[in-house]
Order: sequence, then C-alpha cells, then structure tokens
Amino acid sequence: MSDLRERALELDAADELASVRAEFVLDDVVYLDGNSLGALPVNVPGAVEDVVRRQWGELRIRSWTESGWWTAPERIGDRIAPLLGAAAGQVVVGDSTSVNVFKALVGAVRLAPEGRDEILVDAATFPTDGYIAESAARMTGCTVRAVDPGAVPGALGPRTAAVLLNQVDYRTGRLHDLPALTAAVRAAGAVSVWDLCHSAGALEVGLDEHGVDLAVGCTYKFLNGGPGSPAYLYVRAEHQDRFDSPLPGWNSHAEPFGMRSAYEPADGAVRGRVGTPDILSMLALDAALDVWSRPDVSVAAVRAKSLALTDFFLECVGSYVPEGRVGVVTPAAHAERGSQVALRCADAGEVMGRLIAAGVVGDFRAPDVLRFGFTPLYLGFAEVERAARVLAGELS
Amino acid sequence: MSDLRERALELDAADELASVRAEFVLDDVVYLDGNSLGALPVNVPGAVEDVVRRQWGELRIRSWTESGWWTAPERIGDRIAPLLGAAAGQVVVGDSTSVNVFKALVGAVRLAPEGRDEILVDAATFPTDGYIAESAARMTGCTVRAVDPGAVPGALGPRTAAVLLNQVDYRTGRLHDLPALTAAVRAAGAVSVWDLCHSAGALEVGLDEHGVDLAVGCTYKFLNGGPGSPAYLYVRAEHQDRFDSPLPGWNSHAEPFGMRSAYEPADGAVRGRVGTPDILSMLALDAALDVWSRPDVSVAAVRAKSLALTDFFLECVGSYVPEGRVGVVTPAAHAERGSQVALRCADAGEVMGRLIAAGVVGDFRAPDVLRFGFTPLYLGFAEVERAARVLAGELS
Repeated sequence: MSDLRERALELDAADELASVRAEFVLDDVVYLDGNSLGALPVNVPGAVEDVVRRQWGELRIRSWTESGWWTAPERIGDRIAPLLGAAAGQVVVGDSTSVNVFKALVGAVRLAPEGRDEILVDAATFPTDGYIAESAARMTGCTVRAVDPGAVPGALGPRTAAVLLNQVDYRTGRLHDLPALTAAVRAAGAVSVWDLCHSAGALEVGLDEHGVDLAVGCTYKFLNGGPGSPAYLYVRAEHQDRFDSPLPGWNSHAEPFGMRSAYEPADGAVRGRVGTPDILSMLALDAALDVWSRPDVSVAAVRAKSLALTDFFLECVGSYVPEGRVGVVTPAAHAERGSQVALRCADAGEVMGRLIAAGVVGDFRAPDVLRFGFTPLYLGFAEVERAARVLAGELS
Repeated sequence: MSDLRERALELDAADELASVRAEFVLDDVVYLDGNSLGALPVNVPGAVEDVVRRQWGELRIRSWTESGWWTAPERIGDRIAPLLGAAAGQVVVGDSTSVNVFKALVGAVRLAPEGRDEILVDAATFPTDGYIAESAARMTGCTVRAVDPGAVPGALGPRTAAVLLNQVDYRTGRLHDLPALTAAVRAAGAVSVWDLCHSAGALEVGLDEHGVDLAVGCTYKFLNGGPGSPAYLYVRAEHQDRFDSPLPGWNSHAEPFGMRSAYEPADGAVRGRVGTPDILSMLALDAALDVWSRPDVSVAAVRAKSLALTDFFLECVGSYVPEGRVGVVTPAAHAERGSQVALRCADAGEVMGRLIAAGVVGDFRAPDVLRFGFTPLYLGFAEVERAARVLAGELS
C-alpha cells in the first residue's frame, strides 16, 4: 500500500465526523460534486413522504396552519441562521438565489445614502449575480461596475451604493476576506451584499459579527436541501425597518389574510418573503438541516475537516499527477481557500467525462476547469486519495 | 329521501367524470377548497418518492440531464399550455405567482409603445397582484390605477401601457369576459396580462385564440400541483423576441453553461426562467398533470360539470338555507361564473369554523365571505347536496 493510502486510512480513523457519513445515502462513487448538489440525507425521503401523504393528502388545506407550512420560511431561516453566524429573526427561506439577489440588491440601493448610483459587482461572480445586478441597476437608476474583489477597497467611493460579492468564487474556490471587505464597504458608506452559495455550510461566515448588511445563498449545495431547494435572504436586524423589497408579495404583508388592497410590510425577516412558498422543496430542506443538530457537527468542525480534505487532495494530486499536466487554481493558503479544489487543464471537459465514467464525480466549468467539491459531512480521506489516483490515471 | 338527495344520486350516476375521483386521495370530508389547495393525486407520492430516492439519491447531479430536470420548466409548461388554449413553446413553469406577475407586468410595460406610463389593475384583484403592480410601476416610471374590470374599456387611453386582470375574481367567483376585455386592451394599443389562478384547470381560457399578450397562474388550485407548487408564465409567441425580463437569471440565458459575464437571453418561453427550478415541487406538479391525459378528461367536460355542480349547489342552498340568511355573491349567469360559489353573511368567519368541524371544508375570506370551490375532477353531486345541507344546519 502506498504511503498516501496508509495516511488516508489513518486520517479516516481519526476523523471525528466520520460517523456523520451514515446520515447520507451514498454508494461506491466518490462524490465530489456536493458543492453543486448535496447528497440525499437518509431522513429526507420519510420526511417528504409525510409531507405529501399526510400533510397534503390527509390534512390538505389545514396544513397551512396545523403542519406549520405558513411559517416555514422564517422557521427554517432560523435554523440556517446559526450556520451563517446570524442571530434568529434575520433569515427567511424562499425563491431562487437569483430572485433573492434581486431583492437584496434593490433593497441595498434603497438603503444606501441618497444620490449614490453605482453598484460594484465581483468581476468573477457566478453569472446570474451579474445579470441580476444589471437589471437591479437599470431599474434603480444605477450603473454596474465589475471589479476584482481584492480591488473593491480601492474602487469604493462616494458614488458607491452597494457592493455584491461572493464569499467563495464558484470557479476557483478562492475564499475572499469577508470581514475586511465588509468593513471597507461600510466605511465607504455603502451597503454590502454577500452571496454565500459556495460557503454556507462549509465554513464560518459570521454575518452578524462582521457587520454584513444583506446576504443570500442557496441551500442545495453544502446544506443538502435537494435539487432547486429554496434559497435564503439575510437582512441585518438594524436594516429591517427600512428594507424596501422590489417584490412585495402578499406573504410579506403585515396582515396577509386581511386581503387589503394597500401594502403594509411585515416587520422582521418575513418582509423578505414574496408569494406562496414551495412547501415540498422547503420541507425537504428542513429535514436535511437536522444533521446540524448533532452534537458532533458544527461549522468549526466542518471547516477543519474541509481544509484537511482539500490539503490532502492537493498533496495526492501533487504526488500522483505528472508535473505540469494540471494547474492548481485554488489558493494554497487556508485563509483563501473554500471547500473546493479547481484544477486547470486544456482538455478539462473530456477529462471530467472520463472521470465520471470511472466513478469520480466532479464537474466541469467552461472553459478549462475541473472542479472538485469537498463536503466534510460525508466525504472520507480514502475517497479523496482514490479520486486523485483515478484522476492521475485519466490524465496520463 | 328528499328530492334534492335523489337528484344528486341521479346526477352522480350520469356524471361522465365520476370515475376520475379515484385518481385522487379523498375521504369523508366534503372538500370545497380545491380552489385554494387541490387534493393529492394518487400517483404523486410514488412520483415524488422516485424523484427523491432514485433521481436525487442515486443519480444525484446526473439527474439534471439524465432525469430531465434541466428542461422540466418548459416541458411541464408545454403540458399546461393546452389547458390554457395555448400552443406549445409559450408557457414556462417556475417561481411563485407573485414573481411571475412582476416579470409579466414589467415585461408588458417594456412591450408597450414608448411613452405610455399607466398600468390599469383590477380593483378587486387578489392583493399580491396589486402590490406587485405598484412595485413594477415604481420601477418602470409608471403609475397604477385601480379599475373595475367592467370599466376597463372606458379607462383605456393613450397613456395605458398594460392592464392586469383576473379571469375569475378570487373572492366573488365572478368570471370576467377575457375575450372582450383582451380585445379592448389590444385595440387601445396596450398590453394585456391575465392572472389565471382561479380559472386555469376549471374553465376554457383560450389565450392564443383571444390574443392575450401575457398571462400567469398558479398550479396548486385546480391543477392540483401541491402546496406552493411553481407558477407559470405565458408569453405570446409574437412577443417572445421582445420580452425583456426584469429577472434575467442564468436559467434564461441562451447558453447557461457558457458561464458568460454578458447576458444574452434565450429564445422562446425559456426566456421567462430565472434561477434553478425547485425540482421536488415541480415534478410533483408534473405527475399531477397526468390526469389531463385521460381520454375522458378535457377542459370542456370539466367546465360543463363545474357549472352543473355550482348550479346544483346554489339550488340546494336556495332550498335549505332560510331566506335572507346569506347573500349569493357569485353571479347566476353561467358566462359570469367561475368554479366557485361565494356567499356573504356577517358571521362568515365563525360559520366557516363550524362548517369545517362538521366535515365540509371551504374557506373564509375577510371580512364576510364563505367561499366554496368546486373541483369537477373529484367532486360529486351528493357531496354538494350534503355540503349545502350541513351549511344550512350551521346557519340556523
């Protein structure tokens, strides 16, 4: 047995999160795509069956109150909040990430001091954030300027209304400095909006501590909520009274069943709601969040294992893959690394196809990136070593 | 046995849709709230279980292509289209009704001739449409004017950009004249947006035939898609090239996996998509639509039975309930009646509470309306007679 294989077994034996793997449905595939769609938690099928057969099928309309459907968006928001470093009452679940980016950015511009008309957007952002930012800008009389996150402090100025950044870059896996960037945005009198899609559930976020104004994120990656499970919106408590949503649907009304023709926004996180929530997807997510209630599961423990997994993967790749065959895109420094490793090679699309056929599932991001996500809740070190070994075989 | 009970049994025996009831999970409750949340179709639990256990649990990320998740919004849109009188390629499923009202209204203003700055909105609309219309107006430099649907022709003018109307009023059950009103809007050079929440799946809509420009609707009422199942957006084929969505998420991009920083909208109905679709809720809806593939089920047959059910209910109420105890809000004329009956009485909230306790489920709409929905796919005449009889008991 090679040294790295032995090391992997030792690391697995010492892994305090190893038993959490049993909470997920897995097989022989090495699943390194949990940063795109998390694996199925074992308790979700039963929970969904109860929602469908009993709550919908038997109680029908009564479930809006008796099964807690009506308040699910804010109740589940409060379950996600601790994973983001947020106190209760600031997170609400519902709609897609794109729709929440729109709410957050328009809301941010409306929170910004009068007369400011520029939105700064992470130049390497996942595309939807940029598209939605353009629309939000167009509809609020602003313009969008794309900037590298590292260049944000220098780009801030008296015209800056809002700044939209990703905590972890979806393509490179680079972790940006949320505390410092948020502080810079605040110091410039602008409003920060963070996209947490690739960080929440994988590492510390610290929304409250670091003074983040608004944030959004999806729940189907590291939170394992299932395909297209609803996204969430964080509105800092101090801003909630002034948060002015561009999508003031009836679910955000102070008295939704008053059926009033005049809109009066609800207080608190509920103000971020829009229309009727998608209950099946939302309650699958609710069940998926149960794993975070285990005493051995914490964001700190997950982050520590995430770094150990990506360190070990990079070490295995360095050892197995012929030098120069791939470039490592993800930063080596822990402070700059999310929970994914991106490798660059010209034939990345074909390589990923062969890799998937060989039972190692990552994904390809055009034009030349092999992307591997590391989900500490269910991934082991022996799998990581195997992934690197299979990858090396496909690359040679 | 009373005459009406005998009549009910005869009507049930002659009902050509009677056997469709077996496609739904029902019990002894008389469920007259299918216009709020449709009953569970018997095939849905198995379909959802397959989505969760096999498509998500086993195939995981592969299901975006192999299980057809990626194209589900337009594929399911094409299944709904015939129920709306629309040819394929014009309906896309996703997001809530409120979010789709925003897309449609902003899109409508952008389709309207330059310089028009007024949006007319049904004065009795379901509140969310009015709230969202205010936001769409504010963000496009328009103003909103509330008008009674019957007064729309007289209110149209050279400033009218768009007109948002409900085909069936959610409170009164009144059916508005979609063909005539659409023609008037078109003749005035404005853009029509119809909300079909309370009509689709219960009666003929005829979007293509009558020249409707844009339409939205939910799928959890007469389409039985389940709690919070995704809504849909219809964009008339001739407008699709110029449809300019205020929510241009990556799912509406011409090449979504190109990960381009510049937005380029897709052609066709796909342009109405936004972010990642909520697959669990969407595929529950997909299964729920199967009933419309039965050879005996058609919108025409459903409409004929709907009118027979509401006629019979009104007859039973007239016979059983003491004169003057309730007022009938829903129009008597078939051409003006949707698939619901609304009765007015001062103590409607308490009456509905007692009625539900007695096994007849309708709903209460503030301040004084008892609302009863009639879903022809699973409701029988004996149930209707029983509902009226129990209601009379609770009212005396």
